[in-house]
Amino acid sequence: MTMPDLVAARDVNALNEWLNKADTLEIAEELGRLPVADRAIPFRLLAKDRALEVFEALDPFHQQELLEGLRDVNVRELLEEMDPDDRARLFDEMPAKVAKQVLAGLSPRERSLTARLLGYPENSAGRVMSPEVVNLRANQTVAEALARVRRIGGSAETIYALPVTDDQRRLVGALGLRDLVLADPDTSVGELMDKEVYSARVDQDQEEVARLIQEADLLALPIVDTEERLVGIVTVDDAMRILEEEQTEDVARIGGAEPLEHPYLSVSVLGLARSRVIWLMVLIVAATLTVNVLGFFEETLAAVVVLTLFIPLVIGTGGNAGSQSATTVTRALAVGELRTTDVALVVLRESRVGFLLGAMLAAIAFLPTYFFVEDKRIALVVSLTLLTVCTLATLVGSLLPLLARRLGFDPAVMSAPFISTLIDATGLIVYFVIARTVLGL
Amino acid sequence: MTMPDLVAARDVNALNEWLNKADTLEIAEELGRLPVADRAIPFRLLAKDRALEVFEALDPFHQQELLEGLRDVNVRELLEEMDPDDRARLFDEMPAKVAKQVLAGLSPRERSLTARLLGYPENSAGRVMSPEVVNLRANQTVAEALARVRRIGGSAETIYALPVTDDQRRLVGALGLRDLVLADPDTSVGELMDKEVYSARVDQDQEEVARLIQEADLLALPIVDTEERLVGIVTVDDAMRILEEEQTEDVARIGGAEPLEHPYLSVSVLGLARSRVIWLMVLIVAATLTVNVLGFFEETLAAVVVLTLFIPLVIGTGGNAGSQSATTVTRALAVGELRTTDVALVVLRESRVGFLLGAMLAAIAFLPTYFFVEDKRIALVVSLTLLTVCTLATLVGSLLPLLARRLGFDPAVMSAPFISTLIDATGLIVYFVIARTVLGL
Repeated sequence: MTMPDLVAARDVNALNEWLNKADTLEIAEELGRLPVADRAIPFRLLAKDRALEVFEALDPFHQQELLEGLRDVNVRELLEEMDPDDRARLFDEMPAKVAKQVLAGLSPRERSLTARLLGYPENSAGRVMSPEVVNLRANQTVAEALARVRRIGGSAETIYALPVTDDQRRLVGALGLRDLVLADPDTSVGELMDKEVYSARVDQDQEEVARLIQEADLLALPIVDTEERLVGIVTVDDAMRILEEEQTEDVARIGGAEPLEHPYLSVSVLGLARSRVIWLMVLIVAATLTVNVLGFFEETLAAVVVLTLFIPLVIGTGGNAGSQSATTVTRALAVGELRTTDVALVVLRESRVGFLLGAMLAAIAFLPTYFFVEDKRIALVVSLTLLTVCTLATLVGSLLPLLARRLGFDPAVMSAPFISTLIDATGLIVYFVIARTVLGL
Repeated sequence: MTMPDLVAARDVNALNEWLNKADTLEIAEELGRLPVADRAIPFRLLAKDRALEVFEALDPFHQQELLEGLRDVNVRELLEEMDPDDRARLFDEMPAKVAKQVLAGLSPRERSLTARLLGYPENSAGRVMSPEVVNLRANQTVAEALARVRRIGGSAETIYALPVTDDQRRLVGALGLRDLVLADPDTSVGELMDKEVYSARVDQDQEEVARLIQEADLLALPIVDTEERLVGIVTVDDAMRILEEEQTEDVARIGGAEPLEHPYLSVSVLGLARSRVIWLMVLIVAATLTVNVLGFFEETLAAVVVLTLFIPLVIGTGGNAGSQSATTVTRALAVGELRTTDVALVVLRESRVGFLLGAMLAAIAFLPTYFFVEDKRIALVVSLTLLTVCTLATLVGSLLPLLARRLGFDPAVMSAPFISTLIDATGLIVYFVIARTVLGL
């Protein structure tokens, strides 16, 4: 039986056995898939330490749901043990009233740490950092530094990255616990430390912080305030989570939907519909352009009905070419391979790519079209349209994400559906202008 | 002047000044953007240690390009200092002949480490792990363990995660350097270690390894062979890189293109076209279905030309709804929120979402269509088609990624363009069947 079956059957013995064999991640994953009301059942069977580990492995949304099913005493204990930054994320999920109540139940020390983090703006470095950071001084010896780490390191989220500060708490260097452990005990921290130290401002966007951690291969990044004083540290596990969230947002937008706020299975049918309806409505309004364009060319259509047959093919191909270049450029921007100043470079490359693709498709389409309609001129119209639309779509698809970024939007809003819809109307105009010219209408 | 300008002007003094101010990442980024032939110029100006740091921050493709411009002596030194797993990645980029030659120039120890990694299949854990891992024994005291770390830790890629092995080198536990540093020196490693230790097999897919590191918040994951013996370790920085690469592949596929093998700006126009042309051709062949469907209904079209006006709108909307659900499900699969066994659940949810969206769009579209064509029946046809196509597209869009995964493909091949093209033909059939019924043709 699967774990949900055991819970449904209320088979405590078998459930205990399953819990003993499973690892923390498996338990967390299965918990998240149980009906909300049932989640407290297996959770209560876990030993205290294990329960905390499982709780920490849950998504904040699932943490919040689980808390509602637990008794007050357990809740306080769990929250007291969490890292301040994880706790701040959980508080974001709670209704304000509950959060206030729970905050009041924490020890003064943990309460003040959490309150400080919650004071920073959403999505800022301050919100995801851990304020409990072990800093060293340049004039300490390695032995003194190690003693300090042993003394105060127990409550810090990481002791692997150790910022070095001056007497104003300003960042002057950094070293890793590895350097301390491997070095001669009499060396000074100042000699040993890396003076080229990366840091981020407390109000900086969390995605920038995460990307810096990734690109510089860091285990943690010191966070400083406006006066360059050390106030906290962001660890690599938070960076990975942030990058995953940002990527999930990008993928949703590329597909033409607003990002979901919770894991897929925790979002209701109504919630899913809400994330998609706005864009569908925007796009259907944009699509009325195609109705107008076709209305404008209705006479041509009535005269040469066969033109209708190729409408979905030519505009669809344009949409596909546009989606390809839009997603390529969006991703290149996201990972920093392209900058917004690269417009000229992108235009030069993508217009050639588009022309090349269009020329290939035009060549391939000509004969089959000719055999299908038995009219050279129609085949010519379709081929010329494919060439033009592909070039245009590739170019537009690559430029719009750059433009969006310049205007301060997420480039991913230039989604595949958005580009397709835009290309539909343009493609039709191209099609009919070419048709009228070639057919002499 | 920007760094490329300084290089172009061959202004060595100004270039030196720029290099002194810039950090490692900035230098690596600008290097990657220089013309290939010019990259050696600023690189030779760097001090030896710094040069190695910059080299390590480059993408393997850029590393390989840079090596071609350097002299043999420098190359050997750089390669000798790299981590074995990074070196293996670089060797993958080199022409086989060059790789063989360079490998021969390494010291016997580094050569054998690299050769061992290159012996594992591409994309396996073995290919990305570091074989230099510090393992402890359960019967050691903390003091003994620390002494061992100091003795052999210098050459290991990480000493933050320390696997514990038995006398057969089988994994029995793990602890962090943090635990060693904070613990009483007389405690035994066996008491201190975590017995619930995550590990992966050397032939496991690198994406699974990276995802486990992320989900379990690990700094490194021990890698074992088929007999459960410790053979290496994969670190979190490699996990982040792997996840970013996999994500880039997913985004390319979602946009309907094959992933690029190198950074965007390093891929030629021909290379970009090659990554896109296959799918465009597959899709245009699929799109001939729409030509056939329209050909089949040509009489209906000729009789009621006004039906043509709404073709792009109804099939476009279907494509958009399909893209939305396909990308949502693809992402939920990628991050592990959905499993392939969740088909029934997904069908239940997405068919309701699709119906809801379709109903809303149908309601919104009715009046404007009516006013535009002044024909209630046409408005009814358009609305009914939107309702049907939206429901169908959402359902199909969500099922195809699940099906692809079940068949062992990347769910992301069910791209937005692919779903759109598929929905185009189906949508047309729905449209004409409804039109014929309502209009009594």
